[in-house]
Amino acid sequence: MNTEIKILKQIEPKDFTLISGLPGVAYIGKLSVDYLMKQLKAELVGEVYSKHFPPYVLIEKDGLVELLKNQLYRSNSKDGRNFLFLTGNAQAFSPEGQYEVANEVLEWASDHGLKRIFSLAGFVTDRPFDKPNVYITTTKSNLLEEMKKLGGIALDQGIISGANGLIMGLAKKMNLEGACLLGETHGYQTATGRYLSDAKAAKAVLNLLASFLDLKLDMDPLEKQAQQTDEVIAKMAEVERRIQEQMKQEAKKPSYVF
Amino acid sequence: MNTEIKILKQIEPKDFTLISGLPGVAYIGKLSVDYLMKQLKAELVGEVYSKHFPPYVLIEKDGLVELLKNQLYRSNSKDGRNFLFLTGNAQAFSPEGQYEVANEVLEWASDHGLKRIFSLAGFVTDRPFDKPNVYITTTKSNLLEEMKKLGGIALDQGIISGANGLIMGLAKKMNLEGACLLGETHGYQTATGRYLSDAKAAKAVLNLLASFLDLKLDMDPLEKQAQQTDEVIAKMAEVERRIQEQMKQEAKKPSYVF
Amino acid sequence: MNTEIKILKQIEPKDFTLISGLPGVAYIGKLSVDYLMKQLKAELVGEVYSKHFPPYVLIEKDGLVELLKNQLYRSNSKDGRNFLFLTGNAQAFSPEGQYEVANEVLEWASDHGLKRIFSLAGFVTDRPFDKPNVYITTTKSNLLEEMKKLGGIALDQGIISGANGLIMGLAKKMNLEGACLLGETHGYQTATGRYLSDAKAAKAVLNLLASFLDLKLDMDPLEKQAQQTDEVIAKMAEVERRIQEQMKQEAKKPSYVF
Amino acid sequence: MNTEIKILKQIEPKDFTLISGLPGVAYIGKLSVDYLMKQLKAELVGEVYSKHFPPYVLIEKDGLVELLKNQLYRSNSKDGRNFLFLTGNAQAFSPEGQYEVANEVLEWASDHGLKRIFSLAGFVTDRPFDKPNVYITTTKSNLLEEMKKLGGIALDQGIISGANGLIMGLAKKMNLEGACLLGETHGYQTATGRYLSDAKAAKAVLNLLASFLDLKLDMDPLEKQAQQTDEVIAKMAEVERRIQEQMKQEAKKPSYVF
Repeated sequence: MNTEIKILKQIEPKDFTLISGLPGVAYIGKLSVDYLMKQLKAELVGEVYSKHFPPYVLIEKDGLVELLKNQLYRSNSKDGRNFLFLTGNAQAFSPEGQYEVANEVLEWASDHGLKRIFSLAGFVTDRPFDKPNVYITTTKSNLLEEMKKLGGIALDQGIISGANGLIMGLAKKMNLEGACLLGETHGYQTATGRYLSDAKAAKAVLNLLASFLDLKLDMDPLEKQAQQTDEVIAKMAEVERRIQEQMKQEAKKPSYVF
Repeated sequence: MNTEIKILKQIEPKDFTLISGLPGVAYIGKLSVDYLMKQLKAELVGEVYSKHFPPYVLIEKDGLVELLKNQLYRSNSKDGRNFLFLTGNAQAFSPEGQYEVANEVLEWASDHGLKRIFSLAGFVTDRPFDKPNVYITTTKSNLLEEMKKLGGIALDQGIISGANGLIMGLAKKMNLEGACLLGETHGYQTATGRYLSDAKAAKAVLNLLASFLDLKLDMDPLEKQAQQTDEVIAKMAEVERRIQEQMKQEAKKPSYVF
Repeated sequence: MNTEIKILKQIEPKDFTLISGLPGVAYIGKLSVDYLMKQLKAELVGEVYSKHFPPYVLIEKDGLVELLKNQLYRSNSKDGRNFLFLTGNAQAFSPEGQYEVANEVLEWASDHGLKRIFSLAGFVTDRPFDKPNVYITTTKSNLLEEMKKLGGIALDQGIISGANGLIMGLAKKMNLEGACLLGETHGYQTATGRYLSDAKAAKAVLNLLASFLDLKLDMDPLEKQAQQTDEVIAKMAEVERRIQEQMKQEAKKPSYVF
Repeated sequence: MNTEIKILKQIEPKDFTLISGLPGVAYIGKLSVDYLMKQLKAELVGEVYSKHFPPYVLIEKDGLVELLKNQLYRSNSKDGRNFLFLTGNAQAFSPEGQYEVANEVLEWASDHGLKRIFSLAGFVTDRPFDKPNVYITTTKSNLLEEMKKLGGIALDQGIISGANGLIMGLAKKMNLEGACLLGETHGYQTATGRYLSDAKAAKAVLNLLASFLDLKLDMDPLEKQAQQTDEVIAKMAEVERRIQEQMKQEAKKPSYVF
């Protein structure tokens, strides 16, 4: 088991667009993609497991245990276009692992009809703003120009770290069309370093993407969802404190016994 | 040599239950499984070696040197049920190594008749208590319900790190029945960060497991064993101090020579 | 994808000299090789990708995204000698990765006619100087003697870390002729630990190499280029501050979500 | 290239004893084995290269560059017994690498007639002493008893970290006869954390080994060699300071460029 893509529903190869939103800054990518999937009634078609994910398991609300994983969902838009979504509860742990997982997913997708890819993520600034910008970088010039016309602001320097960046760089190497949409956020964090999810940034990212893809989305529930999410996070503060305490205990654990 | 399962006694494949207790918080898992094995007169049938274990060897009481390793023991209950036990003196060192060792063991077991798995471990709280709780998480809902009836307390959030958690997550992915039993402990540590073994927690874990599996165990020696263990640990304080001193010296060692 | 050499223009195997200048101390190696390539009108013939490079992508000035990579360029001198150049925007991240990338490149080159190799890099001293020294170490004694005659100063102790050193050590093991030319520099750094590129050291290195290889180079633009580079670096200070801020944010990012 | 054993002189398989002394605490193992090889006029027969060694190259006194490596030497004693020696200028960098290199060497040796192995190393104590003890641990009880009769002191607890320990643990797993001889030392270090080589401890280790193997050695030059070594180390203090400065500079080096 290095990195394994476990197919739950067989997919016949045909042209599709991949939209990726893995956990990262202010959960903007994950929040956006999860919302989009709900609106487009996407169904789970595959899971990605890897020894490169962090070495622990989650206990879910139903009391059941769960490996860290990424997930692939599929849906069709009303006019028959095919979409695949990449989401999950983890990014790979090591630098090499981040390359490997992104590459495995992209190669699998490429074998199944991948034509275009959008990666949704966050971009931290300390600029005061009413409406967050959406920053963009792409694999091809024409895509950049089209997105600028819709209000996206092209970046011309900097780096994008982690899975959301690597998947775009690997798409460029494979000569695929792709764009990374980065929602502006202040990246507020709790005392324990946990991000508050930023639904305003997610909304800005989704508005640009929907406009570009000509998708009709009901945006009302997104703000509500964001409020609920913030309440959940508040309740999680105590849980989190306990997790951190437990991890601190684990870290002190000697790796030998008598 | 990546991870190697060295079979000492050939096992014909037939249905069995695996009970795992690797070193971890307060040695609750290891203590429980070692005790259970003694009571069920288990015999050593295999050893697990891996380059992912920490890079040192142990000097045993008889003056002989020993690689770090995990061990597989086997026994039958009086009514003919088959049990396999996983114990050892180390967990893998790196995140990737933890996945690999857990996965190798589970795949080997699955090829030899593995039907159900119990992972025993500790759970640190700062709640004052007379009688420690046993917290549980499982791979299937029915197992969770059955254990709750016997007094187990279902977790509904959090993480389990290391081998004891990963083996359960991997079992879920393989669609196996499994439960993790976590004995409540205060996780007291010596000045050098070494856990005191917690026999009270081990007893609570074993009581729940024995009740669930309908095993009759003589629990008297467990408390005595715990007392002896605590004396051993006290004597080991000086040894440990020397080990730490030596490791500190080793860490300073330059990796080149003239 | 471990390490991949992607050939853009097919090269028929024939004897050639490889000149390597990867990013390092004061960018002396990269600056020297990039300059040499411009003067010798080298063309891009291949790219080196690796999961061992750091796990992020660059956003280029044109708004497009780019994986970290090394590059292979080719040119002929006026008298028909063949040169290959190795440059790039990254070195491998992990110790094992540094060996692997250097070894892959060298094995590929060896299969395509590699006869001799020069590795250009920097050497930090705190000696006050008007004219920087060029320090040398080689794989064969005769090469060392020839370079000493041209003003190179033989090192007789110390280490060379990273790709520029490993490629030379691996060349020695393959019994290839090779020399490492290290331009003396004070290695000034910006507040964020970024090197100022040292064109004076690059000039000294190139003068020795051109003299040894009997290449006629116009050295005037090099000083100008260095001045421009320093201006670019000044402008990049603010960018860099933002990158660091973003990396700090990323580092705080929890690797799990609710 | 993972780990490669490069044979320089073909060895026909026949029974031999391996004596290992890799760099470690106070250079006791390396000093002992290098001395023994000189006395027994051993010749170089193979080299061990690995991507798991630290990622830098050495510049030797003759100005030539050298990869880090281990070396295999061979000699016969006057009565016709065969000895192989393992020495070198590095140990593997990562935990997994330490297992891999030790295992590769041992498997190669086992294929060529390895019957018995001695690993020589240091053991730091703060006990005041006139004559250093030689501590021992073995893979078999009879060997331990024989060495105790010759003055060795059996250890009955603790760990041995790194290659010198792992090679012994792996020998135990392969059911080979083996002993680790650890010379007592105070492990003095220079201000930069570099060990002073301890020839008194090396002498004690060699005396026990020679007595056990019934080898006649001229021990006079050893003390002299130790004095010379100490002078060399004194001269190296300045060099070392420069290396450390350079490594510090390298560590600050950003891994991207504009």
